[in-house]
Amino acid sequence: MKAQKPSLPKGTRDFGPEVMAKRNYILDTIKSTFQKFGFAPLETPSIEKLSVLTGKYGDEGDQLIFKILNSGDYLGKVTQDDIDEGAKHLTPKIADKALRYDLTVPFARFVVMHRDKLAFPFKRYQIQPVWRGDRPQKGRYREFYQCDADVVGTDSLICEAEIIIMINEVLPKLGIDDFSLKINNRKVLTGIAQVIGHEERIGDICVAIDKLDKIGKDKVIEELATRGIDGAAIEKLHPFFDIKGSITEKIAKLRAIFADKAPAGLQGLDEVEQVLNYIKTMTQSAEPEKDFSLDFDITLARGLSYYTGAIFEVKVNNVQIGSISGGGRYDDLTGTFGLSGVSGVGFSFGVDRIYDVMDELNLFPANTHASVQVMFTNFDPKAEAYTLPFLPRFRNRGISCEIFPDAAKLNKQFKYANRKSIPYVVIVGEEEMKSGKLTLKNMDSGEQEALTVDEIIEKLKPIQKVV
Amino acid sequence: MKAQKPSLPKGTRDFGPEVMAKRNYILDTIKSTFQKFGFAPLETPSIEKLSVLTGKYGDEGDQLIFKILNSGDYLGKVTQDDIDEGAKHLTPKIADKALRYDLTVPFARFVVMHRDKLAFPFKRYQIQPVWRGDRPQKGRYREFYQCDADVVGTDSLICEAEIIIMINEVLPKLGIDDFSLKINNRKVLTGIAQVIGHEERIGDICVAIDKLDKIGKDKVIEELATRGIDGAAIEKLHPFFDIKGSITEKIAKLRAIFADKAPAGLQGLDEVEQVLNYIKTMTQSAEPEKDFSLDFDITLARGLSYYTGAIFEVKVNNVQIGSISGGGRYDDLTGTFGLSGVSGVGFSFGVDRIYDVMDELNLFPANTHASVQVMFTNFDPKAEAYTLPFLPRFRNRGISCEIFPDAAKLNKQFKYANRKSIPYVVIVGEEEMKSGKLTLKNMDSGEQEALTVDEIIEKLKPIQKVV
Repeated sequence: MKAQKPSLPKGTRDFGPEVMAKRNYILDTIKSTFQKFGFAPLETPSIEKLSVLTGKYGDEGDQLIFKILNSGDYLGKVTQDDIDEGAKHLTPKIADKALRYDLTVPFARFVVMHRDKLAFPFKRYQIQPVWRGDRPQKGRYREFYQCDADVVGTDSLICEAEIIIMINEVLPKLGIDDFSLKINNRKVLTGIAQVIGHEERIGDICVAIDKLDKIGKDKVIEELATRGIDGAAIEKLHPFFDIKGSITEKIAKLRAIFADKAPAGLQGLDEVEQVLNYIKTMTQSAEPEKDFSLDFDITLARGLSYYTGAIFEVKVNNVQIGSISGGGRYDDLTGTFGLSGVSGVGFSFGVDRIYDVMDELNLFPANTHASVQVMFTNFDPKAEAYTLPFLPRFRNRGISCEIFPDAAKLNKQFKYANRKSIPYVVIVGEEEMKSGKLTLKNMDSGEQEALTVDEIIEKLKPIQKVV
Repeated sequence: MKAQKPSLPKGTRDFGPEVMAKRNYILDTIKSTFQKFGFAPLETPSIEKLSVLTGKYGDEGDQLIFKILNSGDYLGKVTQDDIDEGAKHLTPKIADKALRYDLTVPFARFVVMHRDKLAFPFKRYQIQPVWRGDRPQKGRYREFYQCDADVVGTDSLICEAEIIIMINEVLPKLGIDDFSLKINNRKVLTGIAQVIGHEERIGDICVAIDKLDKIGKDKVIEELATRGIDGAAIEKLHPFFDIKGSITEKIAKLRAIFADKAPAGLQGLDEVEQVLNYIKTMTQSAEPEKDFSLDFDITLARGLSYYTGAIFEVKVNNVQIGSISGGGRYDDLTGTFGLSGVSGVGFSFGVDRIYDVMDELNLFPANTHASVQVMFTNFDPKAEAYTLPFLPRFRNRGISCEIFPDAAKLNKQFKYANRKSIPYVVIVGEEEMKSGKLTLKNMDSGEQEALTVDEIIEKLKPIQKVV
């Protein structure tokens, strides 16, 4: 057989040891927080029935789903007509399975299939890859991880408060301190549409005012006009542009505008206020806005159609990368599978983006990428036999270690240790075996010390695990 | 849209919270051991180019690979002739990607693609799902996890010794104490074939003697005859049937038989002996056979064609489930991708089978499945407000906890806690708020105690994490 030069499908990535160590640092931090808050892990199969996925992501989404060719003679039941009608028609006849496109639809399927056995409210987190046939580009992959946490089966606003608290635990733990967490409520957006008398145009209104930050008031008004919102209605929007101040002040100003005109808006404000109160009560924070980097932003919409209550979004300040976390409350996750009336609230962390932010800001702790803490040299069978018994002693103390498996020149062994980012090398040569004092070399600083095995074990504490 | 009744593709599974907790208990134990021994994590994409996978698993394997339909108009370049030639011919024209079938081929691809940047010897572990279009049956799935560890780029037998030590660390940590770890060496098998004068028939010979345990000596001889091995040759096999005793004794007896006749066999014995010596040196074990449940079994072959040196296999005694771990040394993992001469040794844990063994023998520690350690009741807004500040105090001490998010009857809340296997419930009612002593209920025993918040925190140590 001729040797192939292998390559990866476009839009996919290998995660080598260094990248894995950094990714695991992020994921372990997220998981341990989810668990402390009572979220339990769930994993669903990568493969779903195509019929479960189709029709959930819009026409464009359906195109991007990766379909899996049926096993065996998949052409057996296909007619010439099927083929003549083209790929779109043929696909469901030769592919009845597909790769999951997100974690939300499989989660909904899971809840519906297991509803009789689950404890409701059901709190789960799920960290698994998803696949999309998007055109790959910088930061966009065809296989990437999603990291979701949801509570379904309750409309308690404690859940919203805890999501905000969790985000504020995870990000600072990762060293990301300078971020803004914006909240809004779909009902407040509905209220705005009610005030201007065009509740039915809420989609257009939100798309436009969502851009306020980027394009400014005048352009937003222009866009609204282009979208056919009449001048009198736009006039009524003006007060909303001037809503400023603390969250409490914003709520008060909005209450005055909504009064009598926008019952949905008032309900939305009640919810925002209640979430804020829950945070205050739970954390004894006098200023949750500062303590939790919170802002109430009435222009935040995030694809709107999906959310029915709270909406969240997190951006890192001074880094150009888009949002690293977002979510909201929805009321009909499971309706498509025949289980209606299940309210839920969820959010996700953008793990790839968090990784990029941490890389850019240099936030990974030193030695995150070190898979092994110490390597022992190996010069000849005698030194090897002298060294081997040390290994279990280090490992039993939780210190990861290895011996270079072959007798080799010191330079080759150092090169190995450096490539693997091993922070310490213990050199065991003639001198060391005679004295019983081994040479511990710090590979970063180049410093060397002569120490006994016990002294080295004392010195090298096990790599800190994030909990 | 009409509601669908959703279901899973056959051969796939959801892992709900309880199963996930148990699986993670196993995987965390394995990972922490791998890491202590210097193995670093690797993840490769689920999707590989079909050309990378094809031809690596035999014709039957190729059939079982799940192929992914090309995006867009995959029929565009297909001719009527292509279709007329049937599915097998058509597949590579409409599917250029596929789901990974095992972790070995992607690992080989990774090593070849990254050879210039890797530190050799390269030690990696990889725990990821694989997909096979097998007919699903009890214990056999179309999507299942593999858990591999390999060292490539060295032929040092320290690696073999460390694999045996790792297996002996992981299984007892999981509570699996009664197992047998059989070792053999491909060269010993070659030696046997050399002795009987039919080195070229090694495949047939191994398939037959591999069954010695199950069908006994007479049937093995019968099978060898059926396979066309002549009587004189079979006669020469007899001494091998009587090899008994300690590993050292077996080596001595085999050395006598191999002498002058089977150079490969002698080399194999040297290797087995050296591995044993490494284990003795490293662990100061005087009786590695007992301490490591080791047996040298000259009938162990395990698909042979692949392995060139050591062969391992682990079975749990008194449980009918097949092997739970196995592996061996290979010399040409990466040859198919153009990089020859890379020797390696690897093994894998059968995670699904280990799970089944532990379930059957009841080896999961109590509360492995508890995702939350304590739930606080919620009777009304007043009790809720009183309780909320306790949550961060517990969580900051590493105790996972939650409040029932809605005011509800006690029974409903207990039912929730039981379904979620929460071991403790803290009841906060009128009485408790007045006295400041909360009622801590042990959900297993039903026992109740009146304690202050601090006393409860002291009592509930965080769920032990395996390291």
